[in-house]
Amino acid sequence: MRYIFHPDALGHRPPNYIQRGERRPMPEKPERAEALASVLTARGGVLETPPDYGPGPRAAVHTPEYLAFLESVHDRWVALPGASEVVTPNVHRSNAPASYPTHVVGQAGYHLYDTSAPIAADTWTATVAAAHAATHAAVLVATGETRSAYALCRPPGHHATRDMGGGFCYLNHVAIAAQASLPLLTGQGRPPRVAILDVDVHHGNGTQDIFYSRNDVLFLSVHADPNVFYPYMAGHAHERGTGTGEGYTINRPLPMGSDEATVLAAIADSLADVARFAPEILFISLGFDTFKDDPLAAFGVTTPGFRVMGEMIARAGLPTVLVQEGGYAVDALAANLGSFLDGFEGV
Amino acid sequence: MRYIFHPDALGHRPPNYIQRGERRPMPEKPERAEALASVLTARGGVLETPPDYGPGPRAAVHTPEYLAFLESVHDRWVALPGASEVVTPNVHRSNAPASYPTHVVGQAGYHLYDTSAPIAADTWTATVAAAHAATHAAVLVATGETRSAYALCRPPGHHATRDMGGGFCYLNHVAIAAQASLPLLTGQGRPPRVAILDVDVHHGNGTQDIFYSRNDVLFLSVHADPNVFYPYMAGHAHERGTGTGEGYTINRPLPMGSDEATVLAAIADSLADVARFAPEILFISLGFDTFKDDPLAAFGVTTPGFRVMGEMIARAGLPTVLVQEGGYAVDALAANLGSFLDGFEGV
Repeated sequence: MRYIFHPDALGHRPPNYIQRGERRPMPEKPERAEALASVLTARGGVLETPPDYGPGPRAAVHTPEYLAFLESVHDRWVALPGASEVVTPNVHRSNAPASYPTHVVGQAGYHLYDTSAPIAADTWTATVAAAHAATHAAVLVATGETRSAYALCRPPGHHATRDMGGGFCYLNHVAIAAQASLPLLTGQGRPPRVAILDVDVHHGNGTQDIFYSRNDVLFLSVHADPNVFYPYMAGHAHERGTGTGEGYTINRPLPMGSDEATVLAAIADSLADVARFAPEILFISLGFDTFKDDPLAAFGVTTPGFRVMGEMIARAGLPTVLVQEGGYAVDALAANLGSFLDGFEGV
Repeated sequence: MRYIFHPDALGHRPPNYIQRGERRPMPEKPERAEALASVLTARGGVLETPPDYGPGPRAAVHTPEYLAFLESVHDRWVALPGASEVVTPNVHRSNAPASYPTHVVGQAGYHLYDTSAPIAADTWTATVAAAHAATHAAVLVATGETRSAYALCRPPGHHATRDMGGGFCYLNHVAIAAQASLPLLTGQGRPPRVAILDVDVHHGNGTQDIFYSRNDVLFLSVHADPNVFYPYMAGHAHERGTGTGEGYTINRPLPMGSDEATVLAAIADSLADVARFAPEILFISLGFDTFKDDPLAAFGVTTPGFRVMGEMIARAGLPTVLVQEGGYAVDALAANLGSFLDGFEGV
């Protein structure tokens, strides 16, 4: 197992975001990454800084407009009279037709579908660093340098669509990594194919969006019922992909309050789907917000339960890239990642 | 000229909204309607209270989900832990597929495309009252009871799409009124047809959305360039309608800072298009935010200029329904409406 982390990911520090009409402190903070890094070094691991893969990997997943927006928007935003400290959208796309706006307020709402993706001065640098970390993990596994790798990404990425950020996410790191791996794979006589299993408590709506019409990337997600939980408008079982991608998106929403056994059973079912698909690499969008004491309080997974989850994923027997997503019980993150890795590496 | 006003429209009083990431006082306030009403009575006019037209007219324009949302959301919102005083969306539709959410936070973002449509306790009652006023004005004109009528609507309506509110708007009063008039018209040997000319400083993106694929309602709008002005993502000249509606949407965006002559010339060009279409009724989305001293500071129309505008519209020689939209220089609203009516009624 290789551990990949770029310290620039710590630079993203928006102080707050708006939820239910009120400004609140950001739960997605640098201390999360520090806690996760601490357990890796405590295990005797080496944190490898990824090389700079340039703009290619992110450009293979996101639109040029969105990337230019993310890179430039903070400077333009703070120059606006009366603007808040961090980029906060206030007007979004309504119904068709939506023409691409040139004004920064219009672009903010065109490219951010919620107020939970505040953009501060170092947000771009941090999410680019996290994308390089995920890409590096994927390259190491795809080229056979290692059987498995963990990318300590932060901010998270799975809510970012092809051209929109939201839910603390800007670039979609797992999607960028999965896409980057494909040209490196042999295909074993077939077109190269990979799977992404998202075990964060939230539906990976961004990842779903990016691969929704494709059959070379199987996307699976186990998450809290979007009828009553973020991201609210995607993640239902009836969303199964479109066109050639039909059947290659598999959502398993679970009721709020689901216990550990229910969550692990849904992951087991997802892994059975993965086995049928027979990918060359299994990517995991790894969130620890299914934890019973996470502030989001949706699922009941315990610290020992993450060990079982790690074992189950390892037993899939596939080259595996773990990409960090959410998890907001900062004091428990080290223990939960440690438990997961105990399970994964112990198989 | 008949003047229609429902006093329930005064009840809508959200104290603030969020713009550029900061909470700000609402410029769309009851005093606007009081100022506009004052000039009507000062002219010796009678303010007629519209009858209750029931749910039919609004249901002919908006979706059942959106109407149920508008009617019920405030009670559900204030029951949410930590929620703000007024409904304020924080998560919107991202890319496809968007499944309809059941949770109030999801519905708020599904149905409100910006943070400028705060919903307070009496918002529904007020916009329903305003819709009845617009409908009544349309019925009076369509049935020949009067040649022209002015509906003092508030909140405004033209930013509301079929299923989304935004920009201080909830129900689209002018669209409801135009739709309600069609069955009452003879068609003069052809299918009945009406035109809506929007002279508010903002593009009427909601009205455009509602009639975008139809050829029985010509929609024209003169407004500040959406590249740099709200609603940012619609209102370009290249948006011309779709399908059978192609060519029946005509946008004339003008540069920020356009002077009175430029604005009036664009309205004259629009009226020439109206004449070619030969509608049975001309609806005007009447905003006074083109005023030179409006806080939005986009255009340079003077108080005497509104008199010229009223004359131009009257000279179209069509049965006319005036529906009030924006205008935020409260101290000048009475003078500007008075000047417009001097022009319109003097022809």
